[in-house]
Amino acid sequence: MADPLPSWNDGTAKKSIADFVGRVTAKGPDFVPEEERIAVFDNDGTLWTEQPYYFQLAFAFDRIRALAPKHPEWKDRQPFKGLIESDLKAALATGEKSLLEVIAVTHAGMTTDDFSRIVTDWTRSAHHPRFKRPYIELVYQPMLELMSFLRANRFKTFIVSGGGVEFMRVFAEQVYGIPAEQVVGSSGAVKFERAPDGSVALIKEAKVEFIDDKEGKPVGINRFIGRRPIFAFGNSDGDHAMLQYTAAGAGPRFLGLVHHTDAEREYAYDRQSHIGKLDKALDEGRERGWTIVDMKRDWKLVFPHER
Amino acid sequence: MADPLPSWNDGTAKKSIADFVGRVTAKGPDFVPEEERIAVFDNDGTLWTEQPYYFQLAFAFDRIRALAPKHPEWKDRQPFKGLIESDLKAALATGEKSLLEVIAVTHAGMTTDDFSRIVTDWTRSAHHPRFKRPYIELVYQPMLELMSFLRANRFKTFIVSGGGVEFMRVFAEQVYGIPAEQVVGSSGAVKFERAPDGSVALIKEAKVEFIDDKEGKPVGINRFIGRRPIFAFGNSDGDHAMLQYTAAGAGPRFLGLVHHTDAEREYAYDRQSHIGKLDKALDEGRERGWTIVDMKRDWKLVFPHER
Repeated sequence: MADPLPSWNDGTAKKSIADFVGRVTAKGPDFVPEEERIAVFDNDGTLWTEQPYYFQLAFAFDRIRALAPKHPEWKDRQPFKGLIESDLKAALATGEKSLLEVIAVTHAGMTTDDFSRIVTDWTRSAHHPRFKRPYIELVYQPMLELMSFLRANRFKTFIVSGGGVEFMRVFAEQVYGIPAEQVVGSSGAVKFERAPDGSVALIKEAKVEFIDDKEGKPVGINRFIGRRPIFAFGNSDGDHAMLQYTAAGAGPRFLGLVHHTDAEREYAYDRQSHIGKLDKALDEGRERGWTIVDMKRDWKLVFPHER
Repeated sequence: MADPLPSWNDGTAKKSIADFVGRVTAKGPDFVPEEERIAVFDNDGTLWTEQPYYFQLAFAFDRIRALAPKHPEWKDRQPFKGLIESDLKAALATGEKSLLEVIAVTHAGMTTDDFSRIVTDWTRSAHHPRFKRPYIELVYQPMLELMSFLRANRFKTFIVSGGGVEFMRVFAEQVYGIPAEQVVGSSGAVKFERAPDGSVALIKEAKVEFIDDKEGKPVGINRFIGRRPIFAFGNSDGDHAMLQYTAAGAGPRFLGLVHHTDAEREYAYDRQSHIGKLDKALDEGRERGWTIVDMKRDWKLVFPHER
C-alpha cells in the first residue's frame, strides 16, 4: 500500500498517528465506531501559517485600507490607525479581543453572500509578504495528508478555530476538503431581514457574538459538533482547553501539537510569541505524552509548492 | 426499483418530491452538486408530533416535578407552578420565551454528559398521554422515508428546530439517522470548567443563549451549516423565515409544509393553534406553489407502529 503520509519523516509523530488510527479502526478493545471518529483541527498555525500575523488579520488589513476613505474617524483610533499606516506593532498591541472587534467591523454591514464574494476575491489577489504566494497556498502538506488519511479511515474532520467561521468557510472545502458545515469558529451577529420588496437576506452586524478560542473551543465543539472528539490537533495555548476536553473522554485519544521549530522553511516560535504562543500546552503535552510534531525534524515538506 | 416513499399516497406532494430529487440529481440545467444538496427539516410537528404540547416540554414537566422538592420557590411562580400542578394551560399562557427559560432552568447545573444521560433515560421511560408510547416512537414514517430517500440521493439532512439542540442530539441519530453534528437548535450557555483535581467538564448554565425559531432559523442555518439549503420542510409560522431564506437562493428549490389535517390518526390544527400555528406560511405556500402535505390525504401511514 502506498504511504498515506509521504510528507512525514519516519519517527515518533508519524508512528503515533498510524498506531492510533490502526487501533481505533481494527476490531479489538480500542475500536471506535465510525460515527464517533470525530477529529478536530485548529486552523492558524496548525493547518496553515499564522506568521507574521494571522491571515485573517491580513484580510482585515486590506479591507481597512479599502474602507478607510469612508471612515475618517479611524485615522486617530487604534487599532485602525496602525492597520492603515501599516504599523502592525501598534495595531497588535491592542490585544486579541479588540482585533476581533476590528474583524467584526471590517466584516459587517453587508450580506453574508457579499462577504463570501469579498473573501473569495481576496484569496485570489492577496499575497503573503514573505512567501509571495496566495495565502491559501501556505497550508501544511503533512496536515493535508493527515486529514485525508483520517477521512479515508472514516473519521469526520472538523476545523475548530479562533478565526472567523464565515471567513474560513469560503475556502475550507477547496483548500482542506472540509465542507462549510464542518467548520467551527468565532462569529459576529447576523440578522435576517425582509426588504420592502419582499426579498430576504442575512446581514452581518458589527458585533462579536462568539469567540471560539481557549475555553471557548470546547464550548464551540459542544455547540456545533455536539460530541467529544477522539482526535485533536493544535499548536498553541489557545488549543489547550480543546486538547484537555478531548483527552478527558473515555477510550483511546489522540492529542497532537504542531511545534514550530523551522525558521528556515517556515517560522520558529513558541513560549515567547505574541501569535500562537505555545507554553502551558507544551508542558502538559510533554508531561502526558501527547504527540508533539517537531516541524523541522518530522516534516519532509512544509508547503505543497515544495514538491 | 422499490418505491422509496411507500407510506406516501400518490398525489401532488409525493410527485413534487420525486420530481425535484430527479431534477437536481440528473445531468441537466437543474443539476446540483452533491455538496450543495443541503436539506433542512424542522422537528416538532414536521418530523414528530408536537401535540398536546412540545415533547421537550413534557421532558421539562417531568424534570420540574423531579427537581421541585429542592426548589420551594417554584410553587408560587408561573410557569413552574402550572407544570408542578399539571395545570398546563396556566404554564403555557406565559409564552414561548418564558418556556424556553424553564427549559434552560431544568436543563442547567449539570455537565453536558449528565444531561445526555437524563434525556436518554427519559426517552425510555416517559410515554405520550394519548398514544401511550415512548415519545421517540411518535415520528412520522413518511418523513423518515423522505429523509432516507434524500440521503440515498446524496443530500445531507439537517434538523433545524426551535427545540433544544442538546435535547435532540441525544436521539437524532437513532430516531432519524441524523448525526449530532447535523442538528441545529436553540441552546443554553455552556461553560468549560477545570476542577481543582485537574478534571475538566462542560457545565450547562441557566441562561438562554440562542433561540433557533422564526427569524432565528436562517441565522442558525448560517451559523451552523454555513450554506443556504436547497430543500426545506416545516409545518408552522416558526419555519416561515427558514422557508423564505431557502426559497430566495438561485436555482431549483423545494419548499414543503406538513399541514396537520388528521384528527383521527394524529391531530388537526393550523391557524388557531397555540402550538405549531400555521397561518402566514400557509398563505405564502399556497400563493407560491410550495408543497403542502395534507396529512390525511397524502400519508398512507402516520407512525411506524401502524405498519
